[in-house]
Amino acid sequence: MNKFFNAFHSPLGAHSSFTLGCKGKSGGLGLEMGGPACEDIYIGIENIDNKNYKLFPFYAGDVDESYRYDHDSDSSAVKESIISSFNDSEIIREFNTGYDKWTAEDISFNIFSAPVVAPDPITSSSDEQKFAYCPAVIVEFTVDNSKSSKNRRAFFGYAPKNSTDSLNIMHNLPEGYKGIARGRNTGIFTDEKLAIASQGFSAEGILSETILENYNFGLGPAGLLIFDVEAGKKKTFNISVAFFRDGIVTSGEDTSYWYTKFFKSISEVAIYSLYKFEDYKSLALNIAKEFDAPHLNDAQKFQLAHSIRSYFGSTQLLNWDNYPFWVVNEGEYRMMNTFDLTVDQLFFELQQNPWTVKNELDMFVSRYSYTDKLHFPGEDNIHEGGLSFTHDMGRENHISRAQFSTYEQFGLTGCFSHMTHEQLINWVLCGAAYYNKTDDKRWLLRNLSIFNMCFKSMLNRDNPDPSKRNGIMGLDSSRTLKGAEITTYDSLDQSLGQSRNNVYMAVKSWASYLALADILDGEDSSLALEQAKKAADTISGFLNKDGYIPAIMGENCDSKIIPAIEGLIFPHYFGMENVLNEDGIYGNLIKSLKTHLNTVLKKGICLYDDNGWKLSSSADNSWLSKIYLCQYVAREIMGVK
Amino acid sequence: MNKFFNAFHSPLGAHSSFTLGCKGKSGGLGLEMGGPACEDIYIGIENIDNKNYKLFPFYAGDVDESYRYDHDSDSSAVKESIISSFNDSEIIREFNTGYDKWTAEDISFNIFSAPVVAPDPITSSSDEQKFAYCPAVIVEFTVDNSKSSKNRRAFFGYAPKNSTDSLNIMHNLPEGYKGIARGRNTGIFTDEKLAIASQGFSAEGILSETILENYNFGLGPAGLLIFDVEAGKKKTFNISVAFFRDGIVTSGEDTSYWYTKFFKSISEVAIYSLYKFEDYKSLALNIAKEFDAPHLNDAQKFQLAHSIRSYFGSTQLLNWDNYPFWVVNEGEYRMMNTFDLTVDQLFFELQQNPWTVKNELDMFVSRYSYTDKLHFPGEDNIHEGGLSFTHDMGRENHISRAQFSTYEQFGLTGCFSHMTHEQLINWVLCGAAYYNKTDDKRWLLRNLSIFNMCFKSMLNRDNPDPSKRNGIMGLDSSRTLKGAEITTYDSLDQSLGQSRNNVYMAVKSWASYLALADILDGEDSSLALEQAKKAADTISGFLNKDGYIPAIMGENCDSKIIPAIEGLIFPHYFGMENVLNEDGIYGNLIKSLKTHLNTVLKKGICLYDDNGWKLSSSADNSWLSKIYLCQYVAREIMGVK
Repeated sequence: MNKFFNAFHSPLGAHSSFTLGCKGKSGGLGLEMGGPACEDIYIGIENIDNKNYKLFPFYAGDVDESYRYDHDSDSSAVKESIISSFNDSEIIREFNTGYDKWTAEDISFNIFSAPVVAPDPITSSSDEQKFAYCPAVIVEFTVDNSKSSKNRRAFFGYAPKNSTDSLNIMHNLPEGYKGIARGRNTGIFTDEKLAIASQGFSAEGILSETILENYNFGLGPAGLLIFDVEAGKKKTFNISVAFFRDGIVTSGEDTSYWYTKFFKSISEVAIYSLYKFEDYKSLALNIAKEFDAPHLNDAQKFQLAHSIRSYFGSTQLLNWDNYPFWVVNEGEYRMMNTFDLTVDQLFFELQQNPWTVKNELDMFVSRYSYTDKLHFPGEDNIHEGGLSFTHDMGRENHISRAQFSTYEQFGLTGCFSHMTHEQLINWVLCGAAYYNKTDDKRWLLRNLSIFNMCFKSMLNRDNPDPSKRNGIMGLDSSRTLKGAEITTYDSLDQSLGQSRNNVYMAVKSWASYLALADILDGEDSSLALEQAKKAADTISGFLNKDGYIPAIMGENCDSKIIPAIEGLIFPHYFGMENVLNEDGIYGNLIKSLKTHLNTVLKKGICLYDDNGWKLSSSADNSWLSKIYLCQYVAREIMGVK
Repeated sequence: MNKFFNAFHSPLGAHSSFTLGCKGKSGGLGLEMGGPACEDIYIGIENIDNKNYKLFPFYAGDVDESYRYDHDSDSSAVKESIISSFNDSEIIREFNTGYDKWTAEDISFNIFSAPVVAPDPITSSSDEQKFAYCPAVIVEFTVDNSKSSKNRRAFFGYAPKNSTDSLNIMHNLPEGYKGIARGRNTGIFTDEKLAIASQGFSAEGILSETILENYNFGLGPAGLLIFDVEAGKKKTFNISVAFFRDGIVTSGEDTSYWYTKFFKSISEVAIYSLYKFEDYKSLALNIAKEFDAPHLNDAQKFQLAHSIRSYFGSTQLLNWDNYPFWVVNEGEYRMMNTFDLTVDQLFFELQQNPWTVKNELDMFVSRYSYTDKLHFPGEDNIHEGGLSFTHDMGRENHISRAQFSTYEQFGLTGCFSHMTHEQLINWVLCGAAYYNKTDDKRWLLRNLSIFNMCFKSMLNRDNPDPSKRNGIMGLDSSRTLKGAEITTYDSLDQSLGQSRNNVYMAVKSWASYLALADILDGEDSSLALEQAKKAADTISGFLNKDGYIPAIMGENCDSKIIPAIEGLIFPHYFGMENVLNEDGIYGNLIKSLKTHLNTVLKKGICLYDDNGWKLSSSADNSWLSKIYLCQYVAREIMGVK
């Protein structure tokens, strides 16, 4: 495998990441970004036999900015560079959930991904929170000069991308600390007393500098922490890569980072993380063991290690009127708490941080819920609707107004239309999963009326006439005007894009009715079960002679889709193995879906030529998380090997 | 003249600018930048005869971002654009110090540059300060639909450049206000009740949108304020282009914008500026008259209008422990309070805002002064030095550590070396000019000891042996180690780059001694006069048989430089016309400089072929401000026509 891939090393809830791994200017210290910061990272050591330096290849060509100031200087004069990268073959990478260690020749650096459990800000102690939410990533930097008979210089630094704020050497740190920072927001620090913080037009310029005082050159866009190691010695240096954004950070509503309750500046973040270095490190080493699960293959372990550390880089724990607001930003797009991603992240969050699910569900109820009217295709919105929830809560630090997402538009039938029905069942399924996992009866009690309203809303979306209900969605929201709702698979074709009569949605609806039957009482519970049965019968009734269930049932869309089986995950997660039994009450549904899966999992249908899974036979876009989910269902529930 | 040039419309002390004028994506709402923000600005109107729109040409091709979300959409389908630019010939621009008015067809917008006097934050009232330092630029937007028989839509908006914070519609504004903003930092607002704030993937997308609710599309990178004007009506709308940065904004030391004492958010800025719209407007119209001076030619008026509004975009009034800190950023380079620019800006600041000069001088004394040792060329730093001042106080919102600039390095002889002697006499000259203009005796009294220390420092830099002094600089600072000091002309060749024995520096030194003779008492005053006389004699003594004074006197540099005459500005400004008299005590100096100027102001020497002034016969770089200064001296003092 190519070892030069980016990994996002992220503190919890700080929406930041120390990213590194791809060659060139591809990593960096990213704060509130939808990708890597694309900054130069300089990590290297002096050669043993000459004055030149070898670096890990995480920088682009070193550009000297002095020409901007000195127009008469001869910029065409080519000097031989004193810095160059290690050969690929010299570089060793060790990558797991707890750490990411790079070694080349006589140096190594180990980036620890420490906390992977976010403590509940309401119930945990200040100390726990301070430790877990400290917005820093720690790195152990080791220089082995034991075999050398001369002192050697090593360094660790970066060239921050242009911002309105300058790179600067942190001159006001307490005795014994050294640091370089971009404004007040990102920085690299050490508690090595003898380290030198330096700044210059380029890494090469700094390393060529012979006058100590000139390491303070304030015009320089590049900064290095310099470590000199004596002949015959091996030294390990502790480094903190820190992030900080102070004050109110969101528009729409005013919120600040939760961590600003504990830290007043990036210096405080750095000093604390260096003080707790050994604690973070041993935690990371434990995590490395914990996630080294024997039942996972190497590819799965890799994905786990990769995605956990990346995921937290998209999280923000915000302080909204002194109440925690947990936000997961949608990767590149940075939509906040996209609900149809929440439902996929659910299983991870319930394992690690169940309170975050509650936090999001409560916010969807209190601010991001709405009621609508409904229409049959081509008709008016004359039918009663009900409660549902928005697609998201905002984007790029903008908290969207109450009852509205940033994503959803009115009057559409495709991408950017509303996902009313899907977000409705997402709330039901997330809520049921949260209760199932935590047994949080207080929360359930407080939200019984919401589950009830969701149930009524689902019934109304099936058919206004109870006698005509078939358990699946038949009407679209008035928020689409005369248009149609879409699903989370928003940019696929109709096969997965259309919500109404979609088999993917139908199986999730079936799972939702099962969950509601479990949560609600008396008549409601019975009615929910009835609906589940109707849904199951409708779906299995559409299994055709060719052995598959068309993506859109009863309309003119004959595509074949894998996510028909996706919704089975929920009863499985709820422990309702009986409903997944071929011989049980929903046996027909389970058998139909198995037949369906067998039919579609073929090359030319829902398999690519390389056996990769193709979500829809008629479309070509893909979401890895969804494929993993369906593969899990296929393996664990459907018995596919 | 080409009317499509950028003008920087800037509030006072907010380091921000609404920039506009060049075609394409060249203007925008810049906050803390070294140039324009390079954002799309959309200002236009619906055509009278079809559904398309005509815009001023301040945007690049309209890129629709929806393809980022919807991979299956057919992005290759070329639709005919409904927006296009006015023809150049349809566009009229009226540009003066008070306003910048653009007209095309039936619309016009007039950007007012209102306050040009910065009130002293210590002595002026809160109301005065709130009005003057409000970080907004107001614009009057007029739509003349009087000749049309149908309603027409006009708009004013922008697409903010990528930042971590999203464009958003300001939903929380008070009744009657509408606004679009990038995060909490920049925005466009109106108090027109019927205006519609809109957001979309592109200006064209917004203008094509038919569903009102979709104007709230939160993923859109483009925002417009939409104004519908009835048939037969002419309407004028008030617009505020506002800026805001909250909290601590500097590193090194903690400071915040002074305006945050009066405004807690960009909304408050916008609402206040709209409330005071008529006051700002009438002030701007008065300014337009005030600066329409009959003794200036059109080119001069243009430069005045252009530079005043740009200049304030580089200013920051910061709050440092509740004390004002006035910062002028050095254009593209954003060094803070570069002292050798302060001395050029002096004449403008003393006219408009004399307290700012005091503020800077005091900061140079309290934090950015140092003492050194001295050396003759090639020798050691064994001679006593004295007080001097740093080149600057920081860069890009980083306040540099006490006693050190960001610019100056040790051990050099060229660019980035120290400017010790030049900043020393800059303090003397600025201080004397400040006192001369304001008659601020309290300040003078408090700083007499500083003038005295500056005087001693100048003497030491002439020669350690009083009997060998010739009135000009002969020793270099120990901060250059064994190197040499440079002048503000840092990237020119030795002719203007070397400080020691430089005729430009020598005439400034002469002026400094004259100033000191005036300020100091008794023996010191007499000694200062003696030194002035020595300087004058030395300089005129170097007038050679070819009729010029070599740039570096007594060394091997035979270049010819115009700025030999620059320092004459100071005695002229101090009203010491007697010392500028050919028949007076310094008659020889004045005559020599006149001869010098006559000799060098020739093509092939210090004139370009197009009669443009060339600062040095041996170098090709230029600073417009310095040429203006020398042209003023030549015209007003030397009698050159």
